Amino acid sequence: MTVPPRPVRLEDLGAFLAGSPFHRMLGLSLLRARAGEVEVTLPFRAEFLADPEADYVHGGLIATLIDVAGCFAVISAAGHDVPTLDLRVDYLRPAGREPLTATARSIRTGRTFGVADVEVKDAQGRVVAVGRGLYGTGA
Amino acid sequence: MTVPPRPVRLEDLGAFLAGSPFHRMLGLSLLRARAGEVEVTLPFRAEFLADPEADYVHGGLIATLIDVAGCFAVISAAGHDVPTLDLRVDYLRPAGREPLTATARSIRTGRTFGVADVEVKDAQGRVVAVGRGLYGTGA
Amino acid sequence: MTVPPRPVRLEDLGAFLAGSPFHRMLGLSLLRARAGEVEVTLPFRAEFLADPEADYVHGGLIATLIDVAGCFAVISAAGHDVPTLDLRVDYLRPAGREPLTATARSIRTGRTFGVADVEVKDAQGRVVAVGRGLYGTGA
Amino acid sequence: MTVPPRPVRLEDLGAFLAGSPFHRMLGLSLLRARAGEVEVTLPFRAEFLADPEADYVHGGLIATLIDVAGCFAVISAAGHDVPTLDLRVDYLRPAGREPLTATARSIRTGRTFGVADVEVKDAQGRVVAVGRGLYGTGA
Repeated sequence: MTVPPRPVRLEDLGAFLAGSPFHRMLGLSLLRARAGEVEVTLPFRAEFLADPEADYVHGGLIATLIDVAGCFAVISAAGHDVPTLDLRVDYLRPAGREPLTATARSIRTGRTFGVADVEVKDAQGRVVAVGRGLYGTGA
Repeated sequence: MTVPPRPVRLEDLGAFLAGSPFHRMLGLSLLRARAGEVEVTLPFRAEFLADPEADYVHGGLIATLIDVAGCFAVISAAGHDVPTLDLRVDYLRPAGREPLTATARSIRTGRTFGVADVEVKDAQGRVVAVGRGLYGTGA
Repeated sequence: MTVPPRPVRLEDLGAFLAGSPFHRMLGLSLLRARAGEVEVTLPFRAEFLADPEADYVHGGLIATLIDVAGCFAVISAAGHDVPTLDLRVDYLRPAGREPLTATARSIRTGRTFGVADVEVKDAQGRVVAVGRGLYGTGA
Repeated sequence: MTVPPRPVRLEDLGAFLAGSPFHRMLGLSLLRARAGEVEVTLPFRAEFLADPEADYVHGGLIATLIDVAGCFAVISAAGHDVPTLDLRVDYLRPAGREPLTATARSIRTGRTFGVADVEVKDAQGRVVAVGRGLYGTGA
């Protein structure tokens, strides 16, 4: 952890997000970014369903979307890559067969840690989950 | 939500877990189960890496593993399927190129909700993350 | 838990809050309420300091303020008393020698549980902490 | 935050805890401490009740007890005072007219942050709540 964190410029954020093997596997992409605020989207795929008999997306995918959006909101504010320290997710309603979009905002970016708030909406604009994450911003 | 939850017997837990499209996509499987306690494992795959230049598994996968293990611990105690209400994850150290195993224990199973504690270890037995989830056990 | 929860009308919310022995000990009071949203304030007292040598309010008081505000937001939406199931608090900056005000909003009020979002501000309007709680709304 | 954190030796932990005005107001005291693990107790007082008509201790006090115990577990491991960054509490059963004891264990103490796990028991040894907190250990 004595290696300095990798610098990431705002204009490189989309490519940085898309460069992750797991993000590519899921099809995550950055829709929009400015300092401290990002929008990330997850497509719908049949393999994302939690249950073979019911039409809702697995909660682990929603947690992943929240983690990624929160992380990139803090990266966009801090200017460098940051590790997730902890993550909290509240599931408000099932998400169906449609893409999901997370809007994340850094509500604190300090010298050693940053906090991001995230809201996940379905294609109809209904909030399906909210989350909050704490990220390490120290060297 | 007026549909009664689907009953799941302890001996069917492994097949129930493996029947989820998303669990199959990740290769999640149940190693062991008794009432209120389960062990779930996630294999290592190159697509699970968070970063093309660093060897650690994406935190979203660890959150997914914690959600699934906690959920199945509560299912094993309640005897039926349960939705996740909220999820908390603390990341303690990076997880490398190796399978991860989550041990989950239901610490409360009541009439309307259940709480599970989860610990995720790497192949060397080091704790890489801990988590806690709240699940709905009502009809 | 088979006793039905006590009904609480919006116009009685302030008296209900002030009737709690612990709320009285701390001087908590309801500033404002409508269905699903409340504002609760905590006065400053010298005994609330965390440290004899530094001027900041103890984090336990901020957690208490968040719990109470979130609980009353869900009560105001559900129309009856609700127990706290879990509580999450993020501390963003120290709170000094001044009253604190929490604004809480129920972001989901269902048949068995409700979720509230809470923001705590100091007298200058700076956000010192945010929190989220899950409350049981079932009979 | 450029002031170095105050050093606290294990043998001074009890006096350090008791020196806090808010801890004195509540009657919190340290029962036992070794590096990375502490036990903290909260007496019962009638003013701690949440409700004038029901006999259970206010959840804010339990959150405070968890915050303090977790904080002192990390202090005992880090050797200096630490701020709380975030706190999570799960309430498992109501706590009655009796003292409560929290056992806290630091499960990670790193260069910039520490994580503590806390369990709160009543006088009969029943777990009434569990919690987890993240504390800043950096200079």
